[in-house]
Amino acid sequence: MGREGHLEDLHNPESNVQQNKKKEQQKEELPPKSEFSEWYNEIIRTAQIMDVRYPVKGLYVWYPFGFSLRNHVFSILKELLNKDHQETLFPLLIPEHEFMKEAEHIKGFEDEVYWVTHGGRDALDVKLALRPTSETAIYPMFKLWIRSHADLPIRIYQLVNTFRYETKHTRPLIRLREITSFKEAHTAHESWEDAERQVENAIQIYKKFYRRLCIPVIVSKRPSWDKFPGAEYTVALDVLMPDGKTLQVGTVHNLGTNFAKTFDITYEDKNGEQQYVNQTCYGISERCIAALISIHGDDGGLVLPPEVAPVQVVVVPILFKHSEDVMDTARKLSERLSKEFRIVLDDSEKRPGAKFYEWELRGVPVRLELGPRDLEKGEIVIAPRVWKGERRRSVDINAVEEEIKKEFENIEKILYEKALSSLKSGLKLCSTIEGAKEWVMKGIAIVGWCGEEECGHVIEEKCSCDVLGEPIGDEEYEITECVVCGRETGRCVFLGRPY
Amino acid sequence: MGREGHLEDLHNPESNVQQNKKKEQQKEELPPKSEFSEWYNEIIRTAQIMDVRYPVKGLYVWYPFGFSLRNHVFSILKELLNKDHQETLFPLLIPEHEFMKEAEHIKGFEDEVYWVTHGGRDALDVKLALRPTSETAIYPMFKLWIRSHADLPIRIYQLVNTFRYETKHTRPLIRLREITSFKEAHTAHESWEDAERQVENAIQIYKKFYRRLCIPVIVSKRPSWDKFPGAEYTVALDVLMPDGKTLQVGTVHNLGTNFAKTFDITYEDKNGEQQYVNQTCYGISERCIAALISIHGDDGGLVLPPEVAPVQVVVVPILFKHSEDVMDTARKLSERLSKEFRIVLDDSEKRPGAKFYEWELRGVPVRLELGPRDLEKGEIVIAPRVWKGERRRSVDINAVEEEIKKEFENIEKILYEKALSSLKSGLKLCSTIEGAKEWVMKGIAIVGWCGEEECGHVIEEKCSCDVLGEPIGDEEYEITECVVCGRETGRCVFLGRPY
Repeated sequence: MGREGHLEDLHNPESNVQQNKKKEQQKEELPPKSEFSEWYNEIIRTAQIMDVRYPVKGLYVWYPFGFSLRNHVFSILKELLNKDHQETLFPLLIPEHEFMKEAEHIKGFEDEVYWVTHGGRDALDVKLALRPTSETAIYPMFKLWIRSHADLPIRIYQLVNTFRYETKHTRPLIRLREITSFKEAHTAHESWEDAERQVENAIQIYKKFYRRLCIPVIVSKRPSWDKFPGAEYTVALDVLMPDGKTLQVGTVHNLGTNFAKTFDITYEDKNGEQQYVNQTCYGISERCIAALISIHGDDGGLVLPPEVAPVQVVVVPILFKHSEDVMDTARKLSERLSKEFRIVLDDSEKRPGAKFYEWELRGVPVRLELGPRDLEKGEIVIAPRVWKGERRRSVDINAVEEEIKKEFENIEKILYEKALSSLKSGLKLCSTIEGAKEWVMKGIAIVGWCGEEECGHVIEEKCSCDVLGEPIGDEEYEITECVVCGRETGRCVFLGRPY
Repeated sequence: MGREGHLEDLHNPESNVQQNKKKEQQKEELPPKSEFSEWYNEIIRTAQIMDVRYPVKGLYVWYPFGFSLRNHVFSILKELLNKDHQETLFPLLIPEHEFMKEAEHIKGFEDEVYWVTHGGRDALDVKLALRPTSETAIYPMFKLWIRSHADLPIRIYQLVNTFRYETKHTRPLIRLREITSFKEAHTAHESWEDAERQVENAIQIYKKFYRRLCIPVIVSKRPSWDKFPGAEYTVALDVLMPDGKTLQVGTVHNLGTNFAKTFDITYEDKNGEQQYVNQTCYGISERCIAALISIHGDDGGLVLPPEVAPVQVVVVPILFKHSEDVMDTARKLSERLSKEFRIVLDDSEKRPGAKFYEWELRGVPVRLELGPRDLEKGEIVIAPRVWKGERRRSVDINAVEEEIKKEFENIEKILYEKALSSLKSGLKLCSTIEGAKEWVMKGIAIVGWCGEEECGHVIEEKCSCDVLGEPIGDEEYEITECVVCGRETGRCVFLGRPY
């Protein structure tokens, strides 16, 4: 579970940076989650994920609390990748001549690339692109690194900032000009089949990652007109957001030999022949945190899975006059628990109700309440965040570690089940264009599709939605014909309105 | 010690990426460390720290092995900072109008800032600087975050990439155009005295950090003409490199109220009056890794302190015909040790000598050798890297964990002592300009200085060196007069030739 045992008093909302902001927050009410867009913007601010007031559009500042969440989330992804990937780091700046080598890739990115043109007071000889993604930075090096079949496969990844000059409406964690946390993996293989296996491997890693975040995803093969520029095909992971729109939270690309041909990446095979490598790449950005916040949150604020919560347990002493004993026990208990959990003892002057409100807003999975009467009985009240203050119960103060662990398991189970049930009720098999058009306003429609691009475009236009792609996975849908042309088919596509 | 127990077979030099490169390396001889510049360039490449072949001057690629070292090193720094600092992340891009606010700061950086001028095909309305350092990105937010004395102190840090358009000779880890790993901390306080205490606090943190890397540093107050642009004063940490030059490996700046006035960062004090905050900032870059490599390395390659070594222990089975038992025991032992150490079992086809050579090059602190005769006796040979294959000894195979830990402690002690003795013999008190001029060719000279800037410049000119600054610390030097003007003084300065 990766729980680091130390007192996270730095995340105490009473601590310096945030104190005044907090005062404001208490006055304000969080909008209900049913008003999702307002709720999202407010929670990003009040739960101290990001500050949106940086003086450039689309660039945001991570608050310490948000950045701690970000670190815990990406630790999981790194842990999963480290089993058979190696972490590296490539430069941010890509020279124009490399960036411009792959024709489709350029077309896909040229409208949104930032260019560095000056160093000091001089114009640069060669313009430098801020990486929107790193294929063109990494593959010239692959050319140098790969010579023989014995060098393959290569599987590397990096966690970096990338840049897109977004002209659309920007939004924290979802659409940014500086993606601060892009985990991109790049692999090279001997054969097409090896690359296909790697695509499957990457999908499994990403599914495991989202499972650890208690987030169910749908996986589909993007239609040819929506694949990654330069790829043979793209598989994407989407989540269903509370407003019925979909959010792409991961992509896996089979690049075939396209980039290998452009960058001349060859290897000598077992027969001494020169062959192009087959490549894949796949990425996840901080959108995973947007999904985490949006899917699990409620009217009271964040609800975080224990594994990633910056604060896992808050201890709130309920003090009356002469409550020295309570305070003393709360302190000792916090010290004890800090060996196993990320814990805060909220010993501020505020009333318990105000403390409850704040820590609920921050999504702390477990709250412990200790008053004089609990102390007399040798008990403590445990209140899991996921039940919004309900299902509080008293437990033996000496066995609280075990009870917390039980609750953590419980919370993870409940969060995933709730999210899965939302996703399932948001998915609907539709047999008509009209039905699909109506459904995509609130969820993801599934319709029969013959596989022709033309019919795909008709669907998109008539339903005012996007074809997300053909499902990949175990689910079977009863499809008999294309929803547009009526041709017999067993194939289908997910339709949605993506962010 | 932060040892992560898992088999680091990804760092096995036989693994994919590096195999071919490795073949080359075996043919080449590492230059002796006495030819420091050549040795440094070679070790960066052959020990797989960085690949210098990226197609833009001054930008380098971290190999997985190098990046693992980087992660272990910066983990220590983060651990030390996390006690009373909060990690955040601010945008890379700084709008021109903010960047240009502080006059001295601009003067210090305008010749080396990269400018983003275009997004997609459009010229940007506002030019964006790639941060060379983040004062001008962070302090506009401090203005928003700080209102009252209760918000103070603020202590934040971030680990980011920063950019300098270097026109001088670039060199991996030392002088780069993209500094990939810059840890910069920024603090705000109520008073000048609080800021001074923070400067002292930061120096202590940095000294602890370098102590963990087994690196002794000298600490001095930079002369006024060499302080950070916008600071009241700068304290710097320098190390003495093997070629007698000095490398600045950390700086701590007291900014006073200079930036507070520029960015209008005020707080309400206890009497209800508005006051400017007092600020400090301090940073360490990947130069710490350049120091680590250069100071501890030897003719055989890297020598790494166990705490930061990507591979801490290598097990080399010595195989003859029918050595199934040896291989089997080596495997089980590696599995067992991997719970406590970062370990590699080198079961490649190469001869033991070749394996020894490679793992010595990579600086693995402890090598274990297991042959049939050792097995019979229930023993294993332990060979600490720091003794270059000497001082090998047999130990009970069942107690090898304890022996490794003992060696680790030993290694740390020896590395520090060796480095300290080098530093001490490189420091010399000189009573004449001529003596100092001669000495700075091979080390750091100490001379009396009256404190006048004019005399400082005379020293620099006549000795062809830099005044590093006035020593801060416990050491006392017997000084009676200024080496230039002869005025009576107890003050002195370090002189050196900095990278």
